[in-house]
Amino acid sequence: MSPAPLTLTVLDDDTIRALLTWPDVIGQIDATFAADARGFATVLSVVGHSLNGGRYSIKTSHLRLGEGEDALEVFGLKMGSYFPGNVERSLPTHSAAMLLGDPHTGQPLALLAANAITEYRTAAGAVAARHLAREDAAVVALFGTGGQARAQLEALSQVRPVREVRVWSRTFAQAEQFVRTVKLPGVTMRALREGQAACEGAHVVVTVTPAEAPIVWRDWIAPGTHINAMGSDAPGKQELDPALMAAVTVVVDRRAQSVSIGELQEPIARGLMSADGVYAELGEICAGVKPGRLAPEQITVFDSTGVSFQDTALAGLVLRLARQGHLLNTISL
Amino acid sequence: MSPAPLTLTVLDDDTIRALLTWPDVIGQIDATFAADARGFATVLSVVGHSLNGGRYSIKTSHLRLGEGEDALEVFGLKMGSYFPGNVERSLPTHSAAMLLGDPHTGQPLALLAANAITEYRTAAGAVAARHLAREDAAVVALFGTGGQARAQLEALSQVRPVREVRVWSRTFAQAEQFVRTVKLPGVTMRALREGQAACEGAHVVVTVTPAEAPIVWRDWIAPGTHINAMGSDAPGKQELDPALMAAVTVVVDRRAQSVSIGELQEPIARGLMSADGVYAELGEICAGVKPGRLAPEQITVFDSTGVSFQDTALAGLVLRLARQGHLLNTISL
Repeated sequence: MSPAPLTLTVLDDDTIRALLTWPDVIGQIDATFAADARGFATVLSVVGHSLNGGRYSIKTSHLRLGEGEDALEVFGLKMGSYFPGNVERSLPTHSAAMLLGDPHTGQPLALLAANAITEYRTAAGAVAARHLAREDAAVVALFGTGGQARAQLEALSQVRPVREVRVWSRTFAQAEQFVRTVKLPGVTMRALREGQAACEGAHVVVTVTPAEAPIVWRDWIAPGTHINAMGSDAPGKQELDPALMAAVTVVVDRRAQSVSIGELQEPIARGLMSADGVYAELGEICAGVKPGRLAPEQITVFDSTGVSFQDTALAGLVLRLARQGHLLNTISL
Repeated sequence: MSPAPLTLTVLDDDTIRALLTWPDVIGQIDATFAADARGFATVLSVVGHSLNGGRYSIKTSHLRLGEGEDALEVFGLKMGSYFPGNVERSLPTHSAAMLLGDPHTGQPLALLAANAITEYRTAAGAVAARHLAREDAAVVALFGTGGQARAQLEALSQVRPVREVRVWSRTFAQAEQFVRTVKLPGVTMRALREGQAACEGAHVVVTVTPAEAPIVWRDWIAPGTHINAMGSDAPGKQELDPALMAAVTVVVDRRAQSVSIGELQEPIARGLMSADGVYAELGEICAGVKPGRLAPEQITVFDSTGVSFQDTALAGLVLRLARQGHLLNTISL
């Protein structure tokens, strides 16, 4: 009576880290935003639920990338959670796993760890820099030294000739600690006490903090700078001076998200700009619908809030790479 | 840098079948509906998505059952799909898997096969019969011989002294085939050509078909009968005569679902009754908020549309039983 057991591929974080490389990831994220602009990405409603002092969110999306033999179609969800009380249990506050389904048969296909994917998904910053930062961008100001800071530098170094990084953190000790522990080949790192000093002469500014008030101000930013604002992803979060946002070319990952949980919250609340003031969604630039950087003196901002298809795209990439490498750990249900 | 790997329990269908028994399942489903009536069950929005001729649905729920040491709290989702084209691929048209998360830490907890659970969840019919059928109900009319028909009889036999089953199907050959292959100890089974004859003298009528027009009519049903209408779970589905619905005591699993996808669709459309004409949700009876059968002559209908907490409740039960029996197959992510 029972149908044949389902076979799912299981991919743990170590395997995923062994399979993913920044060039593949950046290419995949670029293609995914382009697919979004062409209507081939569907982001379904997020299911959120608060319980016992924590919160779960279930984010589902469906993607079609490319055509012909190389085409990749992915359907899947990420069940993620944030339980701040886990600090007392010596457990991570964020947890997640991904479940993929076959887009043609409906059968459950793969269960994936989500730590590595969550880290690599921030390659959206490098994708934006590839289209918006000046070609010779070499000097980077990094605001924030948390879990995603290193990944931002690694990815950025893939698309621009980074040779100097100025690091600012909420406390100088954290900036010094980051500089001591994070080494990138051919890159000089310096901890700075003042954010303004970090921005002087920087070609790219990266903010990757949980800030809820500006940490980068308009008069710190020279013409020609590109800014990746990676931190804001919830109501009340803010890293950039609203006057800066209103004065420059703004690109966002998703307009509606930037308005509700990203850097557009405050400029709109203050009447400094409207959602119409956004130059483009990143996908429009990746798809070639709109050009990237137009002039050497242009100041550009990319506001990343995080779109669930970034996770799904990387899960699909990992699954394909695992199949090609015959690295398939499977379970039967 | 990386946090410790997550450890998930994996439970396949064979293990789940070995762990679940009807008495446990019926008790758990009864307690779950009671918890729903007391406000301890949360059914979150269903995420649905159509693609490539099929459809995925993701159903998430959160339950708190009982108190103290025996308390069981479960959070989880079922990713299910219906791909009718799978018939040509010799694959099942329905597929599903369940993912549970720890309700206190947010960590992914278990991945479960969903075939056995989907079968056992229909114990809602037995729960309804326990509260609504006459105590001495021995004669059953069964409409439908598909995958869930046998489970309905097995579960019903746990709560009432079933000794005779009359089986009707869309074709007589199917009814004969069912009677030949399904054996229940101490129960006489007969295939009947006419639905009306099957209902004559029946104490319980069970409909478990994909019908979209009535298959059971008002004047077939004698006083004192209880009817479990298990089939309707989508717009346009219907098993019972709307005039029957309007004339009897109606209990539903969820009022809103019965109106939109269950047996209330047609009676309301025809102006024969309103949602206010429903006597109770099943949970109110399980919780003792409203009494079950009130009089020997009463005709009662239970309309089951399927609530996602039924799956979640059984997944939680299986996980607890697996832990007690040390039957834990785990994977690390």
